[in-house]
Amino acid sequence: MPHSDIDEIIRLFSKLPSLGPRSARRVVLTLIRAREQLMQPLYNTLGKALENIKTCSICGNLDTHDPCVICSDSRREDAVICVVEDLADLWAIERCNLYKGKYHVLGGTLSALDDRGPSQLNIEPLVVRAMADEVKEIILATNATLEGQTTAHYLTNRLADANVNISRLAQGIPMGGELDYLDDGTLGAALKARLPF
Amino acid sequence: MPHSDIDEIIRLFSKLPSLGPRSARRVVLTLIRAREQLMQPLYNTLGKALENIKTCSICGNLDTHDPCVICSDSRREDAVICVVEDLADLWAIERCNLYKGKYHVLGGTLSALDDRGPSQLNIEPLVVRAMADEVKEIILATNATLEGQTTAHYLTNRLADANVNISRLAQGIPMGGELDYLDDGTLGAALKARLPF
Repeated sequence: MPHSDIDEIIRLFSKLPSLGPRSARRVVLTLIRAREQLMQPLYNTLGKALENIKTCSICGNLDTHDPCVICSDSRREDAVICVVEDLADLWAIERCNLYKGKYHVLGGTLSALDDRGPSQLNIEPLVVRAMADEVKEIILATNATLEGQTTAHYLTNRLADANVNISRLAQGIPMGGELDYLDDGTLGAALKARLPF
Repeated sequence: MPHSDIDEIIRLFSKLPSLGPRSARRVVLTLIRAREQLMQPLYNTLGKALENIKTCSICGNLDTHDPCVICSDSRREDAVICVVEDLADLWAIERCNLYKGKYHVLGGTLSALDDRGPSQLNIEPLVVRAMADEVKEIILATNATLEGQTTAHYLTNRLADANVNISRLAQGIPMGGELDYLDDGTLGAALKARLPF
């Protein structure tokens, strides 16, 4: 196709997750057809976001304000900090609408393979935050992967001097999970952590 | 989530085809993480497209030029005009890289249900184009749906006075098609239009 600008938009869209060249083409067609209702608003909000999104200087969250909306929300407890690897994990915890404390976004995990050490993560500011009097608990909500757990262990050492309780997310059978289909690791962990009925 | 600008982008993306709320969130995360490589270029090309895309005054194609790149391409034959319902159909024919004539985009089909008559389609300019001496053939490439075929029949009547051959796309078994899985209509059409081996 010789439409260079349109081709360029299709190429960019096809780089996004869950979009291939074919669905990107469909997306761009939809945009072109709904120029006023969709393309123009998308352009405007993208521009606003590009201009305003910055990293929160307290927790590492990305937001259009600094400190971010969560850090500056006075209704949220200062006593609990939930440490997550990534923005996506923060969003996931926010979606379950249960947690009312603050966050700390590490920006990844320690990884020997990818040559990522503690200095590349947002760890030092966490240690400083943990020293504050009002902080009582730190929840290490890194992923249940090798790197996530390694990072969590490293953090418990770094936070040893702070006067805080350190906790982690419970492991066990997921909602709706059938024993027959669970991996051995999960089932073993659920058995070890069994609770009185 | 309280990030209003980010929420707005997610909402807009989730309106696009093949993206739901969940994948839209993933898309926006990717954009935020790759701000320089992806979000900024997407913003720039969207802006350029919004400013420049217009309807070709000859064929009804959408392009950043008027007349569009296809109409102004001197290497393409003026003798054949391929009539399609929609931009998507033009793109599909261009992708098969076989057709070297010009196009005419109707902008839809006649439809009694949707109350769409000939005056709402780009038909009058087609009749004028068909009268030109250099035009020898008009291919009616509307979809093989009830509305598409109705529109094609209407067009043959309207083009009766023009000195052109009117053709339509062949119907038959699709590439890789298995007889057992084909609908009766397609199989019947393929049988009727059988060719010498």
